[in-house]
Amino acid sequence: MSKSSVLIFGKTNACRPGLSKCVRCVETVNGTTGEGLSLNIQERKQLAEEWIHQGKDKLDHVIIHVGALSLPESQELARHAAAIGASGIAVIAPFFFRPANKDELTAFLQKIASEAPEVPFYYYHIPSLTGVKIRVEELLDGIKEQIPTFQGVKFSDTDLLDLAQCINKNEREQFAFLYGVDEQLLSALAIGANGAVGSTYNYLGRKTNLMLQAFAKPDLALARKYQFLTGEFLNFVIKLGFGVAQTKAVMTFVSGIPMGPPRLPLVDASEEFIIKAKAKLDSIIWPDGD
Amino acid sequence: MSKSSVLIFGKTNACRPGLSKCVRCVETVNGTTGEGLSLNIQERKQLAEEWIHQGKDKLDHVIIHVGALSLPESQELARHAAAIGASGIAVIAPFFFRPANKDELTAFLQKIASEAPEVPFYYYHIPSLTGVKIRVEELLDGIKEQIPTFQGVKFSDTDLLDLAQCINKNEREQFAFLYGVDEQLLSALAIGANGAVGSTYNYLGRKTNLMLQAFAKPDLALARKYQFLTGEFLNFVIKLGFGVAQTKAVMTFVSGIPMGPPRLPLVDASEEFIIKAKAKLDSIIWPDGD
Amino acid sequence: MSKSSVLIFGKTNACRPGLSKCVRCVETVNGTTGEGLSLNIQERKQLAEEWIHQGKDKLDHVIIHVGALSLPESQELARHAAAIGASGIAVIAPFFFRPANKDELTAFLQKIASEAPEVPFYYYHIPSLTGVKIRVEELLDGIKEQIPTFQGVKFSDTDLLDLAQCINKNEREQFAFLYGVDEQLLSALAIGANGAVGSTYNYLGRKTNLMLQAFAKPDLALARKYQFLTGEFLNFVIKLGFGVAQTKAVMTFVSGIPMGPPRLPLVDASEEFIIKAKAKLDSIIWPDGD
Amino acid sequence: MSKSSVLIFGKTNACRPGLSKCVRCVETVNGTTGEGLSLNIQERKQLAEEWIHQGKDKLDHVIIHVGALSLPESQELARHAAAIGASGIAVIAPFFFRPANKDELTAFLQKIASEAPEVPFYYYHIPSLTGVKIRVEELLDGIKEQIPTFQGVKFSDTDLLDLAQCINKNEREQFAFLYGVDEQLLSALAIGANGAVGSTYNYLGRKTNLMLQAFAKPDLALARKYQFLTGEFLNFVIKLGFGVAQTKAVMTFVSGIPMGPPRLPLVDASEEFIIKAKAKLDSIIWPDGD
Repeated sequence: MSKSSVLIFGKTNACRPGLSKCVRCVETVNGTTGEGLSLNIQERKQLAEEWIHQGKDKLDHVIIHVGALSLPESQELARHAAAIGASGIAVIAPFFFRPANKDELTAFLQKIASEAPEVPFYYYHIPSLTGVKIRVEELLDGIKEQIPTFQGVKFSDTDLLDLAQCINKNEREQFAFLYGVDEQLLSALAIGANGAVGSTYNYLGRKTNLMLQAFAKPDLALARKYQFLTGEFLNFVIKLGFGVAQTKAVMTFVSGIPMGPPRLPLVDASEEFIIKAKAKLDSIIWPDGD
Repeated sequence: MSKSSVLIFGKTNACRPGLSKCVRCVETVNGTTGEGLSLNIQERKQLAEEWIHQGKDKLDHVIIHVGALSLPESQELARHAAAIGASGIAVIAPFFFRPANKDELTAFLQKIASEAPEVPFYYYHIPSLTGVKIRVEELLDGIKEQIPTFQGVKFSDTDLLDLAQCINKNEREQFAFLYGVDEQLLSALAIGANGAVGSTYNYLGRKTNLMLQAFAKPDLALARKYQFLTGEFLNFVIKLGFGVAQTKAVMTFVSGIPMGPPRLPLVDASEEFIIKAKAKLDSIIWPDGD
Repeated sequence: MSKSSVLIFGKTNACRPGLSKCVRCVETVNGTTGEGLSLNIQERKQLAEEWIHQGKDKLDHVIIHVGALSLPESQELARHAAAIGASGIAVIAPFFFRPANKDELTAFLQKIASEAPEVPFYYYHIPSLTGVKIRVEELLDGIKEQIPTFQGVKFSDTDLLDLAQCINKNEREQFAFLYGVDEQLLSALAIGANGAVGSTYNYLGRKTNLMLQAFAKPDLALARKYQFLTGEFLNFVIKLGFGVAQTKAVMTFVSGIPMGPPRLPLVDASEEFIIKAKAKLDSIIWPDGD
Repeated sequence: MSKSSVLIFGKTNACRPGLSKCVRCVETVNGTTGEGLSLNIQERKQLAEEWIHQGKDKLDHVIIHVGALSLPESQELARHAAAIGASGIAVIAPFFFRPANKDELTAFLQKIASEAPEVPFYYYHIPSLTGVKIRVEELLDGIKEQIPTFQGVKFSDTDLLDLAQCINKNEREQFAFLYGVDEQLLSALAIGANGAVGSTYNYLGRKTNLMLQAFAKPDLALARKYQFLTGEFLNFVIKLGFGVAQTKAVMTFVSGIPMGPPRLPLVDASEEFIIKAKAKLDSIIWPDGD
């Protein structure tokens, strides 16, 4: 089972000066790419433990996704994450019964965060999958009183007005806004997103770091070239049908490390997909000559 | 925690002759109304055991909903349901990762059904909540070869073309088609639905039985009156905001049995809702003079 | 350019006693099937005139659809329809700018209806195409004060709770509720719909009349057979891709009268579609042995 | 009736060197803000003529929106726009019957463009209103062969992957990509959008120009401040309910020029809206001290 990479840069508290040093090695475990919600609770714990163990000296941060439809299950995972020394926990909005407003969502998140009172807490906002469209800028209003450990948001939505207002209103609190729609990261950077979490960075992380460096200079024309090329690949595979199973296949052929099959209801990427996706990726000529 | 009532009537194999006798007392446990997906696995098992135990001589059938986002969790619940003597198991389509077609959905359901090879299996179709719109009439095509225990569908959708084709094509196999949109049950009966599962029947079950009797005669004008009046109540509460929490509140004031609070992300029905809903229900004059 | 057939039966004021006599020959012109919104205003007037002229002694009613995105255009068409002696006018909800509530929709409809103050007025409710989901039962509340000519609704939606409440609340005013989702007409009849308007009746009108007769007896088992078989055809062609262009093709091969090509953005049905649709329709064996 | 402002800057062919000079004064007439689709054809022609006449020496460009549900009506408007000397025509995708793919949409657009063979043609992409989600980057593939006058796109969508690929693939052809989601213009600039068309610029045009200048330097921190503040206003009014009627009210109180009432189905902005919106706008302190 795999994970999402987190790139943290820009103005977060934890960040060392200088962008290139700021690109930190952070992993989120049991999220969407890792099929966390397809695992049972024992598997989720085991995977979290393994990442904490393996990442000890290699990773700056290991954030464990502990969201679940069931509140007690999520609370149990939060306690477990705290016990094993996770650097942070993340929670998706519940999406069978959906919170109707900010207060209901906050109440749900608070019950989980309070089980790990020393661990930084991240809200995972992905309305395209959850159907929970509560505006994040509203959610953040007064969140620190309810959830003292609140640290930031994985923002996986194309509503950049909402993201911009989050950044505008919360600049001083220094929340992290980690953008999650990889194909338009540059647009989120332009309005001040201070990080990114996404499955693409598992296989295009180095190119994305080059985009971040170009953006930091700023050399927008160069940054744009990188964004266009990652977009060209994603646009191509989206048309073929691109989900978590296909992401694992790409990670496998890029890294050479077998990611294993996905679990039902996901099914393996087709051979045809793999051949076409590999050919496309190989055909791209990057600005760094690679 | 509460449950949905099941009314089975009409042409199912199990049915005794004569409609009034055919209205059987059946419960589904851990479904939507029972907030099954908000419980952890221990709670789901405990609740299932309690229902089987309590229902022993009072209920004709106890069907356990064992669906979950995680396949191994769902399999564990299926084995448990078989072990404690459930009359049937039901499974909702997975809805975080969603099956893309009939084959992927069947593969997922099959892996669960095969863990309880002696227990009748029901598919719970509710696209408004899951977003899984795979047509049931397609799903049923050849389903017995994949899932020999397949017994029927809880059909909670307003696409009555799909339901009609299910009934048309599967008449001989005698699947049960239990309709789940309570406010338009009469319309489903007209095309041959042979049962109903819904939360409304927990508090308007007797009125619904009178509608069924009228329909069986057939006295459509009388059946319609019952449907109009349950619809009048539902239409009223839907405008106030009507979900599982509100259903529990109505069940409580109708039965006098406290149903307990819902679990987050659901929150208690407001006092205002309860007062208005009760006044509305009390104001309705039913054809039987009640 | 073609039209939709209207079957009026049941309890409308205009109805003669006895169902078979009640099936009246009524046409709606310039509606969806007739591609009315794809015509310019001159074409719409010309077509309306031709239908009134040709239908003089053959049709009981000719209803002209005069809805348009532009209010003055719609008003002009309403005046024209009145001038040429239309039996009724129908108006779809505006769907570029959409009315936000019942009052805004009523105000729009009223401005059109008042241009034809002697002509019965029908609201054409088709939320799947317009996105206007204002509940019809709310719209009807007090409508006669605003629109004295209000006569009924073409109800093209699967929300049968809404339809049932319309019928329940307005029984005395004797509005016509003409159901427009052909594949589930029987379900609408069960709750008291007193008519149908739909493109299917252009080629399966006789079979539908037999269904209506069976329902009136009532012989629900027979009515269901007809509904299942029309559904079987529709289910088949929907999977092939079934829209107005394809409907015209079916009308052409059934009637032998060429319906002409559709207008862009619609394009002609493919040869493959026509062959398959014809084979399917020919393969159906109807209860009347046809 | 009002219009949208167009800001053209960056790399378009027509653009003079130097950004501040590149901000050109361009108007689109009969578009969304101008309620073009709510007018009848005579009104549309009259409005177009008036703008061409009044704008003669004041505006660099007057683009007339000639889109309509009816192809012959749209063609008539295209011929008229050409006859009166419009600098360009724009067409929205038809949205009652919707084109199913790129070819059907292109065929529709081509029939209109060819009626004005000397006039630059713009496609108006606004899937949130039309429901037509055909990817623009696909539409553009080979468009010049079908529509030699094709000049660009008003891109009113938050799918910036699509926009980025349009820009990536068509850089050499020098199409104009005018972004239409005002609240996230900066994000579109970051990936190379070379213009903007939006109703906000009617009252916040000067502030937007300052944002463009800051972006051109590049001074991203300053550009961001302007974007945050326009976003703050828009975010505020969106929560109050913000549509074309409300936009007109804001334009009126900002400019002092009465914009007149909207036409049904739109209704006047409430007094409460106007008071609150004005207070909000007045409360904003811009970086230029205004």
